[in-house]
Amino acid sequence: MLRQILIHTVARRTYAVNFIQNGAVRGICHSQWCRSSDIELTSIRYPGVQRGSYAQLSEKHVQHFRSILPSERVVTDADDVAAYNVDWLRMVRGASQIVLKPKTTEEISAILKYCNAENLAVCPQGGNTGLVGGSVPVFDEVVISTSLMNSIVSLDELSGVLVCQAGCILENLDSYVSQYGLMMPLDLGAKGTCQIGGNVSTNAGGIRLIRYGSLQGSVLGVEAVKADGEVIDCLSSLKKDNTGYHLKHLFIGSEGTLGIVTKVAIQCPPSPKAVNVAFLGLNTFDDVLQTFKEAKRGLGEILSSCEMMDLLALDAATSNLKLQRPIGEFPFYMLIETSGSNGTHDEEKLTNFLESSMASGIVRDGTVASEPSRIKSMWKLREGITEGLLHDGYVYKYDISLPHSSFYAIIPELKTRLPAEKVGRICGYGHVGDGNLHLNVTTRKFDAAVLKMIEPFVFEWTSKLKGSVSAEHGIGFKKTQYIHFSKSQSSLNLMANIKKLMDPKGILNPYKVLPAQH
Amino acid sequence: MLRQILIHTVARRTYAVNFIQNGAVRGICHSQWCRSSDIELTSIRYPGVQRGSYAQLSEKHVQHFRSILPSERVVTDADDVAAYNVDWLRMVRGASQIVLKPKTTEEISAILKYCNAENLAVCPQGGNTGLVGGSVPVFDEVVISTSLMNSIVSLDELSGVLVCQAGCILENLDSYVSQYGLMMPLDLGAKGTCQIGGNVSTNAGGIRLIRYGSLQGSVLGVEAVKADGEVIDCLSSLKKDNTGYHLKHLFIGSEGTLGIVTKVAIQCPPSPKAVNVAFLGLNTFDDVLQTFKEAKRGLGEILSSCEMMDLLALDAATSNLKLQRPIGEFPFYMLIETSGSNGTHDEEKLTNFLESSMASGIVRDGTVASEPSRIKSMWKLREGITEGLLHDGYVYKYDISLPHSSFYAIIPELKTRLPAEKVGRICGYGHVGDGNLHLNVTTRKFDAAVLKMIEPFVFEWTSKLKGSVSAEHGIGFKKTQYIHFSKSQSSLNLMANIKKLMDPKGILNPYKVLPAQH
Repeated sequence: MLRQILIHTVARRTYAVNFIQNGAVRGICHSQWCRSSDIELTSIRYPGVQRGSYAQLSEKHVQHFRSILPSERVVTDADDVAAYNVDWLRMVRGASQIVLKPKTTEEISAILKYCNAENLAVCPQGGNTGLVGGSVPVFDEVVISTSLMNSIVSLDELSGVLVCQAGCILENLDSYVSQYGLMMPLDLGAKGTCQIGGNVSTNAGGIRLIRYGSLQGSVLGVEAVKADGEVIDCLSSLKKDNTGYHLKHLFIGSEGTLGIVTKVAIQCPPSPKAVNVAFLGLNTFDDVLQTFKEAKRGLGEILSSCEMMDLLALDAATSNLKLQRPIGEFPFYMLIETSGSNGTHDEEKLTNFLESSMASGIVRDGTVASEPSRIKSMWKLREGITEGLLHDGYVYKYDISLPHSSFYAIIPELKTRLPAEKVGRICGYGHVGDGNLHLNVTTRKFDAAVLKMIEPFVFEWTSKLKGSVSAEHGIGFKKTQYIHFSKSQSSLNLMANIKKLMDPKGILNPYKVLPAQH
Repeated sequence: MLRQILIHTVARRTYAVNFIQNGAVRGICHSQWCRSSDIELTSIRYPGVQRGSYAQLSEKHVQHFRSILPSERVVTDADDVAAYNVDWLRMVRGASQIVLKPKTTEEISAILKYCNAENLAVCPQGGNTGLVGGSVPVFDEVVISTSLMNSIVSLDELSGVLVCQAGCILENLDSYVSQYGLMMPLDLGAKGTCQIGGNVSTNAGGIRLIRYGSLQGSVLGVEAVKADGEVIDCLSSLKKDNTGYHLKHLFIGSEGTLGIVTKVAIQCPPSPKAVNVAFLGLNTFDDVLQTFKEAKRGLGEILSSCEMMDLLALDAATSNLKLQRPIGEFPFYMLIETSGSNGTHDEEKLTNFLESSMASGIVRDGTVASEPSRIKSMWKLREGITEGLLHDGYVYKYDISLPHSSFYAIIPELKTRLPAEKVGRICGYGHVGDGNLHLNVTTRKFDAAVLKMIEPFVFEWTSKLKGSVSAEHGIGFKKTQYIHFSKSQSSLNLMANIKKLMDPKGILNPYKVLPAQH
């Protein structure tokens, strides 16, 4: 049945190539396919969401924006605006009529000051690679794109602190700092398109969190603009600064609802001198957990990634994207990466770990790469899954944190719950080292009945295990009604009060993060 | 002249022994010396600070507290209360008449609810090892001590996540998790006395931040009680949880002014299998920087500490505490620690690094230890400085973050600025790897004229270099008037608004963190 679905989805592949460049998933591309109006408007698909009592965009507003920005950076042509209304997954579509492209903090400040005074809702947008509908308008919000805010402000080679504007593309930053023997502390499939401001606003996780920690640790400072246009300068580029409340964290992970991030100071670790990747085949999920434990023990400080994928997840990359599976067929696969300062030492650690894991039988087969091109191919398999799944048709996407002991149990549970004839693929992959599962169900096209069988079941399941209903993707537009599964009412009240304090009119990225009743 | 001062301070040593246990600085000990009333009351030494219009403690209040807590946990005996009024450095002294010792979150909630209703100001107190007067009352605030909130809630061995109450002593936690092959991600001189709740509230840094990052990264969740008694449960024990605003950060580093931290979930890294410490002698500060650079390069992922101290700083430990200097006399010393998973590999990396640093002449002499007792002795030298300085008499203490290039320049500058006959010691030490200098000036006794020569000069200097006037100690009571040297007015306004939102009556740890005008 899976094969059948794949045949049906061949026709959809044409748009997907726009995402792919150098084999990595690159996020949205403002090209032809985006203009297609076959994606249902969010206001129609989600009739329960009501437009707030914001002002409607008028010619007067457009004229004023043209007094703040040069005309070419005030985009009102419907075709040009269209791409900014649709998310990467083509699941939500707004109806904005205008995109503003500021280049400086001052321009953003002037725009927000005016929008706040005029009661115009805005939607900040970075690389538009978000997966929860947080980066596109829901109705007719004014889109503020940070894509032209792409200057590097400074790099301190000794401390490794990079300061840059919010619109810098993650991969470009990584290339830049690599010239100085440094690397960005986060990496994710969308790196070729996503912007650092968006990463910070979403508190993006990615594939190397296990080694380099979260953005809450590596972002040293943030400059952001509040709804009323006031610039909050907490752009400290110091590793340590305990002077008052740590305001930057109000902007890290609040998805543009408390302010628009305009600059970021981030700690870049030294580039490793040696990188190795092992691609392993395993028989059971218990073996996956045991292997993770052994990797932590044996690889210690050089372990830089610990990913898992089940056979059906890997198949989304191999069958749908025609990528080569490097080893035979197993129920589970792991991708384990080491990054270190001494190639000989690292190789010895990795060899010891693999020998003992294979000797004990927890790892059934495996292959190791140390050459950049082979490493890239292996990562392509893992990073290609997201895009491969899109080829199935419609993807019901969940990004949950769970205790390790219950990490995978929801997949077999869902397989018994969902009628086989209605569903294409039920699969799991993700950052097992961080307890973060990407659970995906696919159908040929959107099916409300299937959705009802999955939600809120998945969230209830997660909540019972004290997991998180959004590990790294954020709440965005699509999960506001489920946030209470992971957050207490007192926390939600405090969040709502902070939102009210910082954005009393609620103009910043409305309908996102907090549930409607707040 | 330095020797003269040391002779005069011998008489003061008696109290200091209370601090010392196993050679480490242990923070306040509620013993005889604390009861001495030779420490000027804060209200007298700082006449500019006015008591807020809070209620005065009455018998009715005491009776009510006795209805919440058993009598023995409502301390009103003046002798018993005295120790809670004085800070570790004996620089500030409050006049509280009552100490409450809750054991549970619910008790703290009931206490705060009542205090808020009655308009009674409170001062939360952990291990009372703070260095900026943040943990003792300024006037007659009700002290809420977390010392009996010392239960461990859970430990997940695989993920390394520890959940515990706020009053657990850092060293006890470290001993506990070490049984499971884990370690606490922070370590500091006061570990034998300081409590994790206080560490989190201060956003404590310590000696291994360079390796394990800040508490903002390693604290996964916090439970805290707001001024009105409402419990904010953001005690996620998940590595990744992007569901709404990251409220925990409101409590990390806000020094008990936004809420009292009652529980903490923290990520514990695996204990290293091998630890080595090198104690190095160097001729110039440029050599210190060069050595840091080489250590980063050569030791990479196993570098777990990079500390420096100048000759006079080390002398505070060797002369005043009679500790042995392990190598000859040099203008600068460094303590470099490695922690790794493979002793042979680590030793090889360290040997290569030391051989090349000595061959190039940047390191003049050095000694290496891998046995726990010798490692402890070396750390004693570094950690003993704080306590050694107290023996000089009065210590003017600064804890600043600076760009590496300007890290040490303020020491020679101060030496030319301050008249030699008035000052004992001007010295610098600290976490050079993190750009964090502990600048200390000592005099035989407090001298307002010397203070005036140092302040605000030191803060202005720091501000000009875009440094932080408090890298890790916090603002507390003593630095509120200097916070603007590191924070913009818009940031300060937002902080004040958040304070007002979360604690409208301002009962939580008043006179601390934010400047009086807010």
